[in-house]
Amino acid sequence: MRVGGVDRRTITPLADGSVEIIDQTALPERFVLRRLTRLDDAVVAIREMRVRGAPLIGVTAAYGCALALRADPTDAGLSQAVAQLAATRPTAVNLRWALERVRETVHGLPPRQRADAAWALAGRLAEDDVAACRAIGEHGARLLRDLAPATGALNVLTHCNAGWLATVDWGTALAPVYLLHDEGHAVHVWVSETRPRNQGRLTAWELAQHGVPFTYVVDSAAGHLLQRGLAEVVLVGTDRTTRTGDVTNKIGTYLKALAARAAGVPFYVAAPSSSIDWQLSAGAAVPIEERGAHEVAGEAALPVANPGFDVTPSHLVTGLVTERGVCAASAAGLTALFPEHGA
Amino acid sequence: MRVGGVDRRTITPLADGSVEIIDQTALPERFVLRRLTRLDDAVVAIREMRVRGAPLIGVTAAYGCALALRADPTDAGLSQAVAQLAATRPTAVNLRWALERVRETVHGLPPRQRADAAWALAGRLAEDDVAACRAIGEHGARLLRDLAPATGALNVLTHCNAGWLATVDWGTALAPVYLLHDEGHAVHVWVSETRPRNQGRLTAWELAQHGVPFTYVVDSAAGHLLQRGLAEVVLVGTDRTTRTGDVTNKIGTYLKALAARAAGVPFYVAAPSSSIDWQLSAGAAVPIEERGAHEVAGEAALPVANPGFDVTPSHLVTGLVTERGVCAASAAGLTALFPEHGA
Repeated sequence: MRVGGVDRRTITPLADGSVEIIDQTALPERFVLRRLTRLDDAVVAIREMRVRGAPLIGVTAAYGCALALRADPTDAGLSQAVAQLAATRPTAVNLRWALERVRETVHGLPPRQRADAAWALAGRLAEDDVAACRAIGEHGARLLRDLAPATGALNVLTHCNAGWLATVDWGTALAPVYLLHDEGHAVHVWVSETRPRNQGRLTAWELAQHGVPFTYVVDSAAGHLLQRGLAEVVLVGTDRTTRTGDVTNKIGTYLKALAARAAGVPFYVAAPSSSIDWQLSAGAAVPIEERGAHEVAGEAALPVANPGFDVTPSHLVTGLVTERGVCAASAAGLTALFPEHGA
Repeated sequence: MRVGGVDRRTITPLADGSVEIIDQTALPERFVLRRLTRLDDAVVAIREMRVRGAPLIGVTAAYGCALALRADPTDAGLSQAVAQLAATRPTAVNLRWALERVRETVHGLPPRQRADAAWALAGRLAEDDVAACRAIGEHGARLLRDLAPATGALNVLTHCNAGWLATVDWGTALAPVYLLHDEGHAVHVWVSETRPRNQGRLTAWELAQHGVPFTYVVDSAAGHLLQRGLAEVVLVGTDRTTRTGDVTNKIGTYLKALAARAAGVPFYVAAPSSSIDWQLSAGAAVPIEERGAHEVAGEAALPVANPGFDVTPSHLVTGLVTERGVCAASAAGLTALFPEHGA
């Protein structure tokens, strides 16, 4: 996507062997680029949410392995890097998926070839992510065109940031919005603040950069907006979707799904296959990251609970928008599109 | 309630003819008392939310009329005071109800008696509010005792602040919690931040003053908590309940009602009769206050919508806890308790 007239991705390998990221903790106030040169840089970037969004976390972890292997290409070095990276964020499955891909790729290679192989793999994962997001955009745009009212803008309600900042480029839930807007369709997005970290500000920044009209609201407003017929569709991302279609995503997603169902509004989830956990059936089994109290209460000494994600059961999900098309949020729906993961 | 060892009410008439309020915009950081001496002070106090909560707004408006009548006891003076006060906050019905009571009371009185009559009425409304809240506390406490688990604390999920700060004393939704706690029952409250103005901080402050255990969470967490069985009951206040039991309350209440229903958890509304709009049937007809963008986005120049309230349809409400007892959220339920408002 373009930022200030320049084409940007959220993560870019540089010729000197370092990796450049957009520091998302500085947005929207400042646009700051940072370089990752060692494993620790990648660990800190993911843990501190300088990069966030399930797809981008996965790619960053793969680059983190490459940086680690350059310093220590032994099996022990790889294991330690994988363990450190896996411990940063428990919920997004892309992280574990990317680390597993690195393991498979370097397995059996002589140590001196491992860093280069991981580096190349990270690049392929990044390109795959861009292609998947672009495909999700096209499949999702078809859905959105059908939901657009005869007159006036199509109103899309989203949560958190599932735009290009959450991926390498394009985004998941916002990719269809960008495509529709670029085609000249009138689209308006309800942007949910997304407490406690206010990732809605990232979504607002993205949409403003791209010229897409939007309105920023508190998370609690979603029920009212849907009840009053002010959104034709809810479209969100996912950090982990089980093989049966239960969707784990940013805390508050489940409430939006309930409100969409009550209002008879379709609730779609943009789910690249990298975010599908083929090992898990029940969403209740997904580990929910508990984050620090300061995110919620700042310096106030309050007893706080801060679950980062919630689970939307599959029966509330109208459909999953994957890179291979749209399917029902069910094992049957998913394995029809991804037969290689069939029972 | 006691603050720092001193018994306090949220609003207190003083011997010098002024009215003392707790400035709730300074809480929880600072405990500040302010004096209202003229109509404008009351108007600003309500509009700027130095006093807030439907019952307290009503009593403050009545005192505001008394202050106005002291300066100008003519019919024109009264009409202007009523118009100014009515314009401060559109949603809470107690405001209009209290102003109507003042009109009735001073109607036909000679001008020189009007200020004193309004002053005395405001005092009676304050005492009535304390008594109503205390009765709601007792009726609600009976409900809560029945919902308490065999072992461990009863977990009550609430929203916004419907504690004593929202009333003259005791509170509505929190009154049963205080009574149960005072009886020695283990009670724990999930306190919802309540963006954009964070009235959850007021609830946290109240509960901490009283020694009631609580946990502070973002508004989006309610679905997750209810889904995981971490609350036995949802208990909230109301700014206006229609005669058919539709409940208008702080934005985000509706989402909690949906999540409670999905989890099979009872959703009760503490509704003093002063907050019931006997003229209205459909919640959709209640005016929803649209507040300023700065509350949501601060200094950021973002397009913002900021509806202050939402409507929970009666079918999601397990029951209304009034000063006369608990009833179904329906015209039949309400008029059984309040036959004077029957068809």
